[in-house]
Amino acid sequence: MEREDPANAETVLRAMEPDEAAEIRELMAYAPDSAGGIMTPEYVAVFPDLSAYETVEALRRVAEEAETINYVYVVSREDEALLGVLPLHRLVLSRSDALVGDLMSADVITVPVDLDQEEAARIVTDLDLMALPVVDRDNKLLGIITADDVADILEEEATEDIERLGGSQPLAVPYLHASPFLLFRKRIVWLLVLFAAQFFTVTIQENYSDILEQVILLSAFIPILIGTGGNVGSQTVSTIIRAMAVGEVRPHHVMRVVGKEAITGLALGLVMGALMFLRADFATGGTMQIALTVGFTVLILTTWAATIGAIIPIVLSKLRVDPAVVSAPFISSFVDGTGLIIYFTLAGYFLNL
Amino acid sequence: MEREDPANAETVLRAMEPDEAAEIRELMAYAPDSAGGIMTPEYVAVFPDLSAYETVEALRRVAEEAETINYVYVVSREDEALLGVLPLHRLVLSRSDALVGDLMSADVITVPVDLDQEEAARIVTDLDLMALPVVDRDNKLLGIITADDVADILEEEATEDIERLGGSQPLAVPYLHASPFLLFRKRIVWLLVLFAAQFFTVTIQENYSDILEQVILLSAFIPILIGTGGNVGSQTVSTIIRAMAVGEVRPHHVMRVVGKEAITGLALGLVMGALMFLRADFATGGTMQIALTVGFTVLILTTWAATIGAIIPIVLSKLRVDPAVVSAPFISSFVDGTGLIIYFTLAGYFLNL
Repeated sequence: MEREDPANAETVLRAMEPDEAAEIRELMAYAPDSAGGIMTPEYVAVFPDLSAYETVEALRRVAEEAETINYVYVVSREDEALLGVLPLHRLVLSRSDALVGDLMSADVITVPVDLDQEEAARIVTDLDLMALPVVDRDNKLLGIITADDVADILEEEATEDIERLGGSQPLAVPYLHASPFLLFRKRIVWLLVLFAAQFFTVTIQENYSDILEQVILLSAFIPILIGTGGNVGSQTVSTIIRAMAVGEVRPHHVMRVVGKEAITGLALGLVMGALMFLRADFATGGTMQIALTVGFTVLILTTWAATIGAIIPIVLSKLRVDPAVVSAPFISSFVDGTGLIIYFTLAGYFLNL
Repeated sequence: MEREDPANAETVLRAMEPDEAAEIRELMAYAPDSAGGIMTPEYVAVFPDLSAYETVEALRRVAEEAETINYVYVVSREDEALLGVLPLHRLVLSRSDALVGDLMSADVITVPVDLDQEEAARIVTDLDLMALPVVDRDNKLLGIITADDVADILEEEATEDIERLGGSQPLAVPYLHASPFLLFRKRIVWLLVLFAAQFFTVTIQENYSDILEQVILLSAFIPILIGTGGNVGSQTVSTIIRAMAVGEVRPHHVMRVVGKEAITGLALGLVMGALMFLRADFATGGTMQIALTVGFTVLILTTWAATIGAIIPIVLSKLRVDPAVVSAPFISSFVDGTGLIIYFTLAGYFLNL
């Protein structure tokens, strides 16, 4: 019987040197951003009818090759389907004649090979796993994702999200290795998109030039008004996009999130609107109508900015677009145009223009 | 001789149940954001004069208590100073009479107990460790930081950085658990600071009201000008702050980073300035002086925004202030005021006002 020879190659299904492993990973050609792309084939698998002693003896052969054999995976002889997992310490501390199939935990958390790498990584962190087996549709074990790789993946994803939120395309190389030309290329794209979005702020102001000409003082408050709107939009969109990235907010939470943000935006608007009213009242020497216009614009604008800053990322996510493209500058630019329309409309009303 | 009895309590220095471990961690009272605050005392340590057999027998007693004993730490009998580390698989696959002191790797990477938790976590990821021992000044082993905890820490830190970069204080609770009142509190502080920073944009425009009154059209370009400056500032500050957080950029890189950003800002300014010139030329029906003012303002402003967006976080870091407080809205607000001064100064020059 072959299982009486612990040195028989069939007792240990897979254990290889890192070089060989890298080669195999390449050959397997899974998408680099999938569970398959980040797993390592350097795991150790045995059959359930081996004894603890036979398994330890078999491991002895591969100890120097398999870097991490803290877990031994148990697969069926028939089709290599994953049956269970056995932590090394349980294995070596068991009676030597106990069968692997009896020692293993059959309750194994696995992920499919085509799962997004970030989702797979987050399962490892959320459940505090040291390793996560990756399987195909037939539950055949293909590789494992280890906790030490996961931190790297999540760090990379966070870096990309931060760069996108700031309004650039991700650099994909360490900052000090990025040439000014690369920095330029990664930033100019979004600047051009944002330029297009802000293109209309010029037109809007031209359209309202009659109001501006009559009350030139109105123009003095434009930067602080759209600035405040943009700040609230930036706060909201950063918080929401991060909450979506870590899986706290999902598309079906849309109403709850938007409600929460609208209320928050309104509350912020009450405080900032009151302050802005006082600032404008002071600047205009008590021209109440301008101060009212400024105050109410801020109230409406912060509510609008918080609401739209919550809606856009969630809607994009529903459309299967990465919500992180809605950067802080994007929301700010969006709020600039709408803010001007709100401002001039209110000015027309309060100043009877 | 006590080491002949493998069940002797002294052979295994520490191995405890999670409840007990949590209690001890609390008692130890290390700062929660230090290596001591995130380490677990659930490690296993033995003396170097034990044999592999004795060690395995000793581990057998604690197998169910110590959740993770993939590494056995070796400490001196005299003062419990860390001497080396022995991976479990090497231990169990060695000859049973080999001494732990001969099997262990003496070359262990450790961190001091008072190291910042983020720096400790980053050592684990950067070096792809499964566990990192934490020691006191006398190299006495106090606990270990495991790879599965590290990902959680880095995720939390990234979330805080993203929330700060967006212009809020970190929420510290999952988004869906945050009430609108909490969201309000975390956002209003920075909005007030930014309001103070933008307070002067009103004054600046009032000071230049004579120029604005003469050429009302100048006001039409203010939102797109300061918007573009703010966008470049946001791009820069997000990239730099993340590069500093992951340890790629350090304070001594200041000249290199600022040089790189100034060149990038200038290049972006050339493209955006040309576009803005064309936009203004079109809007003003060929009033070249206004178009030149707008174009040159963008050129100077993007260079300035990129430069200052690189300098401020590095200077703050030198002053030991967390650079992540320099949010995208902060840079935008800062750029708003300076942008207006540049704009009106150039307008005075080009329009001979």
